[in-house]
Amino acid sequence: MEPLRSRFQKDADKGAEAYAASIPFDQRLYEEDIKGSIAHARALAKAGIISEKDAEFIIMGLSSIREEIERGQFQFKPKLEDIHMNIEARLFEKIGYVAGKLHTAHSRNDQIALDLRLFAKEANSETIARLKELQRALLDSAEGNLDVIIPGYTHLQHAQPVLLAHHLLAYFQMLERDVARFRGCLERTDVLPLGSGALAGVSYPIDRSFLAEELGFSRISQNSIDAVSDRDFIVEYQAAAAMTMMHLSRFAEEIILWSSSEFGFVEVDDAYATGSSIMPQKKNPDVAELARGKTGRVYGNLMGILTTLKALPLSYNRDLQEDKEGFFDTVDTLLSTLDVCAGMVRTLRVHGERTREAAAEGYILATDIADYLVKKGIPFRQAHTIVAELVRYAMDQGKTFGQLSLDEYQRFSPLFDQDVRSITLESSLAARNLPGGTAPEQVEQALRMARRLLDV
Amino acid sequence: MEPLRSRFQKDADKGAEAYAASIPFDQRLYEEDIKGSIAHARALAKAGIISEKDAEFIIMGLSSIREEIERGQFQFKPKLEDIHMNIEARLFEKIGYVAGKLHTAHSRNDQIALDLRLFAKEANSETIARLKELQRALLDSAEGNLDVIIPGYTHLQHAQPVLLAHHLLAYFQMLERDVARFRGCLERTDVLPLGSGALAGVSYPIDRSFLAEELGFSRISQNSIDAVSDRDFIVEYQAAAAMTMMHLSRFAEEIILWSSSEFGFVEVDDAYATGSSIMPQKKNPDVAELARGKTGRVYGNLMGILTTLKALPLSYNRDLQEDKEGFFDTVDTLLSTLDVCAGMVRTLRVHGERTREAAAEGYILATDIADYLVKKGIPFRQAHTIVAELVRYAMDQGKTFGQLSLDEYQRFSPLFDQDVRSITLESSLAARNLPGGTAPEQVEQALRMARRLLDV
Amino acid sequence: MEPLRSRFQKDADKGAEAYAASIPFDQRLYEEDIKGSIAHARALAKAGIISEKDAEFIIMGLSSIREEIERGQFQFKPKLEDIHMNIEARLFEKIGYVAGKLHTAHSRNDQIALDLRLFAKEANSETIARLKELQRALLDSAEGNLDVIIPGYTHLQHAQPVLLAHHLLAYFQMLERDVARFRGCLERTDVLPLGSGALAGVSYPIDRSFLAEELGFSRISQNSIDAVSDRDFIVEYQAAAAMTMMHLSRFAEEIILWSSSEFGFVEVDDAYATGSSIMPQKKNPDVAELARGKTGRVYGNLMGILTTLKALPLSYNRDLQEDKEGFFDTVDTLLSTLDVCAGMVRTLRVHGERTREAAAEGYILATDIADYLVKKGIPFRQAHTIVAELVRYAMDQGKTFGQLSLDEYQRFSPLFDQDVRSITLESSLAARNLPGGTAPEQVEQALRMARRLLDV
Amino acid sequence: MEPLRSRFQKDADKGAEAYAASIPFDQRLYEEDIKGSIAHARALAKAGIISEKDAEFIIMGLSSIREEIERGQFQFKPKLEDIHMNIEARLFEKIGYVAGKLHTAHSRNDQIALDLRLFAKEANSETIARLKELQRALLDSAEGNLDVIIPGYTHLQHAQPVLLAHHLLAYFQMLERDVARFRGCLERTDVLPLGSGALAGVSYPIDRSFLAEELGFSRISQNSIDAVSDRDFIVEYQAAAAMTMMHLSRFAEEIILWSSSEFGFVEVDDAYATGSSIMPQKKNPDVAELARGKTGRVYGNLMGILTTLKALPLSYNRDLQEDKEGFFDTVDTLLSTLDVCAGMVRTLRVHGERTREAAAEGYILATDIADYLVKKGIPFRQAHTIVAELVRYAMDQGKTFGQLSLDEYQRFSPLFDQDVRSITLESSLAARNLPGGTAPEQVEQALRMARRLLDV
Repeated sequence: MEPLRSRFQKDADKGAEAYAASIPFDQRLYEEDIKGSIAHARALAKAGIISEKDAEFIIMGLSSIREEIERGQFQFKPKLEDIHMNIEARLFEKIGYVAGKLHTAHSRNDQIALDLRLFAKEANSETIARLKELQRALLDSAEGNLDVIIPGYTHLQHAQPVLLAHHLLAYFQMLERDVARFRGCLERTDVLPLGSGALAGVSYPIDRSFLAEELGFSRISQNSIDAVSDRDFIVEYQAAAAMTMMHLSRFAEEIILWSSSEFGFVEVDDAYATGSSIMPQKKNPDVAELARGKTGRVYGNLMGILTTLKALPLSYNRDLQEDKEGFFDTVDTLLSTLDVCAGMVRTLRVHGERTREAAAEGYILATDIADYLVKKGIPFRQAHTIVAELVRYAMDQGKTFGQLSLDEYQRFSPLFDQDVRSITLESSLAARNLPGGTAPEQVEQALRMARRLLDV
Repeated sequence: MEPLRSRFQKDADKGAEAYAASIPFDQRLYEEDIKGSIAHARALAKAGIISEKDAEFIIMGLSSIREEIERGQFQFKPKLEDIHMNIEARLFEKIGYVAGKLHTAHSRNDQIALDLRLFAKEANSETIARLKELQRALLDSAEGNLDVIIPGYTHLQHAQPVLLAHHLLAYFQMLERDVARFRGCLERTDVLPLGSGALAGVSYPIDRSFLAEELGFSRISQNSIDAVSDRDFIVEYQAAAAMTMMHLSRFAEEIILWSSSEFGFVEVDDAYATGSSIMPQKKNPDVAELARGKTGRVYGNLMGILTTLKALPLSYNRDLQEDKEGFFDTVDTLLSTLDVCAGMVRTLRVHGERTREAAAEGYILATDIADYLVKKGIPFRQAHTIVAELVRYAMDQGKTFGQLSLDEYQRFSPLFDQDVRSITLESSLAARNLPGGTAPEQVEQALRMARRLLDV
Repeated sequence: MEPLRSRFQKDADKGAEAYAASIPFDQRLYEEDIKGSIAHARALAKAGIISEKDAEFIIMGLSSIREEIERGQFQFKPKLEDIHMNIEARLFEKIGYVAGKLHTAHSRNDQIALDLRLFAKEANSETIARLKELQRALLDSAEGNLDVIIPGYTHLQHAQPVLLAHHLLAYFQMLERDVARFRGCLERTDVLPLGSGALAGVSYPIDRSFLAEELGFSRISQNSIDAVSDRDFIVEYQAAAAMTMMHLSRFAEEIILWSSSEFGFVEVDDAYATGSSIMPQKKNPDVAELARGKTGRVYGNLMGILTTLKALPLSYNRDLQEDKEGFFDTVDTLLSTLDVCAGMVRTLRVHGERTREAAAEGYILATDIADYLVKKGIPFRQAHTIVAELVRYAMDQGKTFGQLSLDEYQRFSPLFDQDVRSITLESSLAARNLPGGTAPEQVEQALRMARRLLDV
Repeated sequence: MEPLRSRFQKDADKGAEAYAASIPFDQRLYEEDIKGSIAHARALAKAGIISEKDAEFIIMGLSSIREEIERGQFQFKPKLEDIHMNIEARLFEKIGYVAGKLHTAHSRNDQIALDLRLFAKEANSETIARLKELQRALLDSAEGNLDVIIPGYTHLQHAQPVLLAHHLLAYFQMLERDVARFRGCLERTDVLPLGSGALAGVSYPIDRSFLAEELGFSRISQNSIDAVSDRDFIVEYQAAAAMTMMHLSRFAEEIILWSSSEFGFVEVDDAYATGSSIMPQKKNPDVAELARGKTGRVYGNLMGILTTLKALPLSYNRDLQEDKEGFFDTVDTLLSTLDVCAGMVRTLRVHGERTREAAAEGYILATDIADYLVKKGIPFRQAHTIVAELVRYAMDQGKTFGQLSLDEYQRFSPLFDQDVRSITLESSLAARNLPGGTAPEQVEQALRMARRLLDV
């Protein structure tokens, strides 16, 4: 019979025990748990609830358990349910009777809330750091390919020419918003729950502010019931992660498209590609495909925790044990995806002649020709109609804009003149010279601003 | 043949036209669209791209279209696809030729981004206001029931007594985090996209900062491709809404439980209840059930937009049209749910004698008895074991703690003394006297702090 | 005070009334509701519970209400909550006192279950019909393009040549599984719930089998509590729809890719495309983009209903009202998407020379060359390695397989001979001559089998 | 440099290698993989593609690898990516050169499809078996508590009395539909994909029907592209599992409610409960809470795979690697949840006196009183109104139906007579005597039918 089953007359059913045990996954929180217990022991001593000597004894025991775990010598037991009871039981073995004093004013309910918040704070910080790494890789690539023109797309159809750097900066912006979201999440995570007890608070005069300081929290929780029931900080991380993965899936999709033989815009480095077991010629952009595919699990984990929390009455319910695995999986997935994407970007080869050639195909300068007419005095909507008819004529003739004679142009509007010939990819880019536009001047300015943001 | 189909040789298939038309739902954005077009006309005039007179003419036309819509006299046509083209076409009818000048430096891609951001800013502000209304209702109820004791639950089992006010304040805290999330979302929404054109920026010297000021935006977007591809502000609202609905579903679940004949803790006011078509005695807490049930649609809308955006290459793709209906539905659902929940809280009758009676049943003071032993010198874990055995004994005897003799107590520990009798619901509450605890003193302090937060 | 509120002392709060009213969307079920009530009136008369004359009177009243609704003359009132009470109230106005007899042995709980099942049966049947329509369009297209060779892809990289018809038949297979799933769903939907009352069954001797026959159901429900609590048939439809939309999103993605200037494999008909408001040259595959984008809402609706049902105690709870809107939306979305996809397929232009040219590029025949070596006696894995090195050499030389001399071939294996030159796209296709393979013979056989399946 | 990287000039990046490796989880498929390879070797020999001796050699090698794995002596290497290449590489070590022949006419793409289908078939069968186990436990419990009356609920309010057995049979029905869905899924899973090669079929005359027979499949796939791209069988399992978990979450919710001190209807056995680390009196229905909570992960896994598959072009893409972990997790979760629920049901103690007492409280017989009036000639709706007023009166007086005098009854309708007193819980039950109703006679009949279904 286990320590917490004293009022029961039976052992747990073996299947039920395995079903309920969280130790297979919450052992990952051993460091947070021990850190929290050490701080708690100090707080108990500070309040005179236990003696300084007992506190030292407990801290010594906990430290040596941490070492055991780190050396792989600790035996986790499902029978002991979770990381807290595993460590507590071992502490009894190590220091005996005194171990029983640690759990004064300490419940597994506020303990797990603490462990998770410590873990989540670290996860948020690390995520922000890796987002910035990827942003840096994008900036480096943008700067290294400043003269590369690509067709800009809407509906995956050629729309208007843009600089590759401008396109990459769009992702920089997305990640910048991601950083802001994780910062908000971090701020809301940075709240000490210890001292909330099982749900109602504790009846010992421990100093919660001291605990917050010891454990590096900026604030203490304001309501004990909320403190043990709340998993918002996990949901919020998962929601922010889902948005980041959404961004990365868009980027991955483009890398995959651009790597196809039809596009041929880029080539993923061998180090980020794999071959085929049957087709000797294959080089697959696997990392991008996996990043795109893993979006699913991150969305799923978000859905999972939202479902688990739906309609759950206060305060702690065992359902909350389901908060961990999906969260860990999302953190691991996001961090590794950010990592490999940064590596993939840094080693990506861009085929600038090919992208320029693609941009030059077709009627990508149609908007510029319409703008040309507008500048000669025609309202935009009419100019749009004239150029649409011009495009239709050119397609029927199998000609590009460049292959049309001035005569042919003038069939559609007398305002066309020789200078229509000076509309080029370059002139098109240069014309979009407002903040946020793709004109080289603007893009250079945007790169400088982005660089500065990275240093914040 | 419609204006934008000039290069085509065929009309749209009727089914395809209906499938693609967004006018049935995006007409809701008419006001934002017209507001944006008026500002755009001013910016065009300011930049000398059109004359002041043309601008005035256009603005007059747009204003009178707004009136037509508001009077219900505007005929929306699916053939014209969306709100932008419906308004543009009507403007042509009204002011002729000049209407064609409005779309200089203006694409549907940046136009819809603008409309949605204007709408979303308003949605965020209104959501924050209603969250505060519900917080206010919770505070009022907490203050009006300051002496009500309820059983605090973990695992839906009696755990420790708490004040109802303390329990309600847990929801106050949740909503406070919700407010912070919507504020962050609002900040990231508050960015002007106009001037991004179709995707690459525009080739006319319009003043984007002027536009931002005209339309009440704090910042302008930094990348034109991102500006037309980005729907983060919608996803983020939906994620924040999902969390709020999760909170409300937890509250609704408790109202439903507490309204059951078995609990009998509260009674929902007749104005928030319904009857049965077949069982004459029924009074159902429908509003709470619906709030709980509607959590599903809000989660679903979040999942929907995340799915739509997954792996979507830049920049605008028609898939983005799917951003609206789920978003509108979430905004409407959240706002109305917050509203009816506030009303339900304000009119809720609490049966304080019944909750006290429930709290007094069983062995809810067991932790306090363990704490009692700890204060007499026994380590907590051992005290826990002793009391667990005491509970088992009492259950076997069919006795409450109060019905046990001192003799019986002392069979489990010699440290028990007469003063064990002074452990009551009230002493239990009073003992939890740390910040965030349920002691009346702490709860009163928490109420004062909450009241102050509401005024921010 | 409304009929069902007789035990209450207050009217509903206006906001709560609007919040709770389902009439804005459940009026769509008027026909099912009236059909069910007519059958119920007959069953009551048959059992002698009401007189034949009363039954006739009721049926006459209900029929005329149906006509009113169909002529748009019925005024739906939110105050009356739902379609059942709206019709019941109107029946009172029309036939007076006798109307009150209709609700003997009839609860809104079994009534709405009936209405939904009638609707869902129809939805399943119609879905199956439209799936078959799309299958037919795919078959017609496959047969009409029997000689078109395309590059087959894995990882969006050229893998092996395949017939376009073979590729289209892959979608035929997916839809065939969809048909099977909707058939299973239909079977489980085809169960009469009437006679379950509010939850416990009814205390009148109505003949449930008679009702089943009248209303076209194959079976009657076996448990009254389940009958009013169960929404599996809606969840199952939504899950099947999610899978179908997933299939259609894959197809849509390919149409979009293939329509890009870089692929240039197909051209969507003007009738299924739209233009741009700013770029005169644009022709966008909007229908495919919308089909892909609408996958989100169908996934979201599935997640919504699953969330609503999670942890809902038996039997009827008002949360169940949330079963309808998402379901209707999914049915409408799926049916219209199937429709427009069929139209798009029927009118799609395939550029067979372009796809052949694309297939001929690169090293798509590498597997065939490895197979060539295997047939000369080398184990496959070694042959694979040899050809991989050959590919690397050819890439370095900038040569295609066809441009390599026999000498160059033989540097990699002495087994290469003149006949390596006879490896062509056609020989590659012809070689895959097992059931399910892309050899023309197999594909023709598969087309015949598919045609037969359509007739089932 | 690994075998499949011969055309590359670089090793994989370490991070990318770890990111892409599936061996940490797909090693679970070793048995299926080896089984498939053995059958494939036989088929190659049968077709004369390899010699009988080579086949025997290969089979011997594979068998001994299986043993190594089962004895825990196999070293899985992430560098070798997946289970297929790990086994292939080991086979080379064991039997050398000949190992290279196994992969003739065999791609990882059809291999993994095979492995997953073998696994999924087993998962479906096992799921059906455990569903039946739980059904059996429910039937046993229903039969063992045949005389237990509980309040039937709608809106968690007392509605009408029902037999507990009737209530439990509602869950039997849900699980019966689950069984049907898994059977449909099994049927669609039972299709051999081998012989589809990488995507186009294979160019060797292997006998696919022979392979199907060897591996226990009923049918062979009809299209090679579909065969390697299709994961419907996984999505369908996950969707069916989500529905089953939804059912179990409803059941779990009821167990949790019924275990509360306020309901007191049942007591979970000690073997399925846990205690508290801080509150000595606690006995928590953890297994039910976990079952409810785990609904989240199963919903999430469904959402995950649907997201991953959205808009994925044909045929195999690396995204598909994401099909496994969520699937395994869902299978494990569902099987263990069914198991522990069956155990919990089998050991559940029901407090029949308490449930009867609860049923007797309040006005649960109101419908019966309305029916009483109907039988005396009043239309139901009027009877409903009369009884609603009677209830309101009784509540005001603080009386139960039994405490009202005949006089008081008659104030509301002259049709009330002495026999209104014979309306009891038992008469109410007995009256609902239609198929599917809660009358004891019907429930006994339903139990017999259910028992027969279990034997199918």
